[in-house]
Amino acid sequence: MSCRRIAILGSTGSIGRQSLEVIAAAGDLRACALAAGGNWRLLAEQARRFKPELVALSNEQAANELQALLPGGTELLAGADAMTELVRRSCPDVVLSGVVGSAGLAPTLAAIEVGATLAIANKETLVMAGAIVMPAARKAGAAVLPVDSEHSAIFQCLSAGRREEVARVVITASGGALRRWDGEQAERATVQQALNHPTWQMGKKITIDSATLMNKALEVVEAHWLFDLPAEQIKVVLHEESIVHSYVEFRDGSVIAQMGPPDMSLPIAYALSYPRRLDRHAPPLDLPGIGTLHFSALWGRFARAVELGYRVIAAGGVAGAVLNAANEAAVRAFLNGQIAFGQIVPMVEEVLNQAPQAGQVTLDALLAADRWARRRLGELVATVGAAGPGSTDN
Amino acid sequence: MSCRRIAILGSTGSIGRQSLEVIAAAGDLRACALAAGGNWRLLAEQARRFKPELVALSNEQAANELQALLPGGTELLAGADAMTELVRRSCPDVVLSGVVGSAGLAPTLAAIEVGATLAIANKETLVMAGAIVMPAARKAGAAVLPVDSEHSAIFQCLSAGRREEVARVVITASGGALRRWDGEQAERATVQQALNHPTWQMGKKITIDSATLMNKALEVVEAHWLFDLPAEQIKVVLHEESIVHSYVEFRDGSVIAQMGPPDMSLPIAYALSYPRRLDRHAPPLDLPGIGTLHFSALWGRFARAVELGYRVIAAGGVAGAVLNAANEAAVRAFLNGQIAFGQIVPMVEEVLNQAPQAGQVTLDALLAADRWARRRLGELVATVGAAGPGSTDN
Repeated sequence: MSCRRIAILGSTGSIGRQSLEVIAAAGDLRACALAAGGNWRLLAEQARRFKPELVALSNEQAANELQALLPGGTELLAGADAMTELVRRSCPDVVLSGVVGSAGLAPTLAAIEVGATLAIANKETLVMAGAIVMPAARKAGAAVLPVDSEHSAIFQCLSAGRREEVARVVITASGGALRRWDGEQAERATVQQALNHPTWQMGKKITIDSATLMNKALEVVEAHWLFDLPAEQIKVVLHEESIVHSYVEFRDGSVIAQMGPPDMSLPIAYALSYPRRLDRHAPPLDLPGIGTLHFSALWGRFARAVELGYRVIAAGGVAGAVLNAANEAAVRAFLNGQIAFGQIVPMVEEVLNQAPQAGQVTLDALLAADRWARRRLGELVATVGAAGPGSTDN
Repeated sequence: MSCRRIAILGSTGSIGRQSLEVIAAAGDLRACALAAGGNWRLLAEQARRFKPELVALSNEQAANELQALLPGGTELLAGADAMTELVRRSCPDVVLSGVVGSAGLAPTLAAIEVGATLAIANKETLVMAGAIVMPAARKAGAAVLPVDSEHSAIFQCLSAGRREEVARVVITASGGALRRWDGEQAERATVQQALNHPTWQMGKKITIDSATLMNKALEVVEAHWLFDLPAEQIKVVLHEESIVHSYVEFRDGSVIAQMGPPDMSLPIAYALSYPRRLDRHAPPLDLPGIGTLHFSALWGRFARAVELGYRVIAAGGVAGAVLNAANEAAVRAFLNGQIAFGQIVPMVEEVLNQAPQAGQVTLDALLAADRWARRRLGELVATVGAAGPGSTDN
């Protein structure tokens, strides 16, 4: 195989940095284009190391800082549309999107247009806009590969059978930092307690999503779009060790599971090199050393959170955008000390209950729903603000 | 797909009976030929139910009893070569071989000759004669599908990558009836204790093999031949729940495991319908209900038994035939009360140590090695006989 050209959107984030390490170790992958928001110092360092043909920064001021630090042969794009232009101009074989939030949407659609394989690491893209992205990808014949460890696991397991032979996919959930806390205890958990994830080292937002299990609500919606599965064929179980990343039940009763250490570089490498598997000289998973794997059904507050994912699938339209935006705003309010941990899910639920029905799902309608949900969540937070965190009735 | 024609060798045994139930439920599988040893009563019943074109009995007297009980349109073959003739004359798409011992060898080679897919449920065939069977299958372009649950698991998991991407296959072992007994306790286990398998309902021979872990020594050799893997790429770990039937480690660090309830009808159905999966309306595996899966490394007497499998791979030649025959004879001696449980593995090891080097591996050389190993094991048993079970030094 000749060198595979990779464009990384969000190269200075956690997924982007790990992707570059995978590329550095692989030999026949090339980082041809790197895009970020405003971290010009790190992007300059990455540009000097990987010598991409193109780099982009959304923040124009940061771009000004970057210009003088770029190696010869690396061109700079700047501004709100720079990321999309970078995708269009870099002729990538694979576009890996690790951009958080709605900013990733337009460049994702551009990647599909240019016929690149799409490696999706930002679940917002599919949760918000699966109804636009997936039909576009199918029409363009562009492959969509998940980078989320759970969806990468399901994708790998699906190769053991045909699509019509799948009975259910089962997403595993570690339960996050508060997995053994009962409802009442968890309601009053501090930010520090909720950030203390037992198995995965990740950003703050997703670590809180792990503790509320809103992460799994989003992943249920993501699985629905990625694998074209109805809600009743998607299940979530608790598995605190995060070793079995997810599994697929086939209609003959056979279950295929994917396992590995909790390390994002594995699903990243898989998405970048698919359908090959890179020789990563990783130490083998030591199941005897781990000793015990636990599985249990969702209970109480966990089931309540995941249920929101199923409701979004049933509602369709812009509901995914509402869920995603309301949750982002609620997590920010919790991290800012404005609301209690136990208020995150009920507030998201309340916003989802009030969501207006959208007509046609367009990019504009999605972005409007996103704004509406953030504003509505903010209003709920303001009500609490008067009484202090934890004062609303859950 | 048109109806797939299945010939079952050993239709009255445990695997054969379960295969017929799978066929009865499937709709588009047809039992076109059934062969057994001497159980004419059950074969008559099966013939009336499945209306095969051909049936065969190795035992000629039993065949005389059967003749009058067959339905119209079912022809009877009798005698030592009847099973081979049945394979040659029945034009099967798949030959499922559940015949125990060396009797299955000639009909297996006949199945390859006629270009049928070979579903192998008797591990003796590959342990003894992998060096003959696998090259013959490759030459004829005949697929060889494992029915053993562990090897079926590995076969299913291998579809998640390419052969050159496999780092290791890992066979799981329940540890059998005495899995928590330490060496000294286990040495004096009674037949009844050793037959009390915690997870699988199987015949006596294989249940004892599970307790000694000789089953895993044989399965290591079987995996070597089936998947063309060197010894260092085959590993065994203890997993007492028998839910993870085996797993494959790929070179990128990803592990794919196959799980299911301990029920042979699943790997049988998979082998008979491959590459499809039948819709079996099986209740899904309830991992949360099972709750906990345990894994641990081999220890003491377990490691000693499995080591014999690796030695057979290293020795090549007729060593597999010697291992298989010596073990069969030792298990029989234990079941007859002639030797202690703790003497089975050391006696097999002693016979293996004394095994003559064979030149070319031919069917005759294998059968001679088989006879030699049984005789030699018998001599060791006779030595013990004078002193009573348990008297030899392990």
